[in-house]
Amino acid sequence: MFVILIYDTAVERNPRVLKTCRKYLHWTQRSVFQGELSAAQYRALMAALSGAIDPGYDSIRTYTVRSPEMVETDTLGVDLGGPGDII
Amino acid sequence: MFVILIYDTAVERNPRVLKTCRKYLHWTQRSVFQGELSAAQYRALMAALSGAIDPGYDSIRTYTVRSPEMVETDTLGVDLGGPGDII
Repeated sequence: MFVILIYDTAVERNPRVLKTCRKYLHWTQRSVFQGELSAAQYRALMAALSGAIDPGYDSIRTYTVRSPEMVETDTLGVDLGGPGDII
Repeated sequence: MFVILIYDTAVERNPRVLKTCRKYLHWTQRSVFQGELSAAQYRALMAALSGAIDPGYDSIRTYTVRSPEMVETDTLGVDLGGPGDII
């Protein structure tokens, strides 16, 4: 499955959230990660993130589609990575 | 088409970017909008945003799929809006 993850967490929790996301996904914009994961990897990522955030303050949102071919990506302005090093 | 839009713009340009995004999409997280648009609406949105950002500093990223049924959404922590008022 292809996962897009956007995090909005307090500054003091960002390092742990970023480290966790980087284990599983590629960083594509300041607050955005994306990548292909198995269902098991996705569950492991979400479980790790659940333990890293304050659910009353932070927010992590994911959008999941079956395969990356179903998604078109567009960037205006600064692009942190081309499609080559993302997918 | 179903559009997910993430903006990362300088504070002084945020009001114009937000106003433009709100015309077309629903706000779902601090820096995330989503919604269903026609191809013409999508082009109009991107053209308006192109004129509102500094392409050397700001970044706007979109992910597009053919229909919202192809996407599953998940939130950890704070959720700004349920599926009911998003799609």
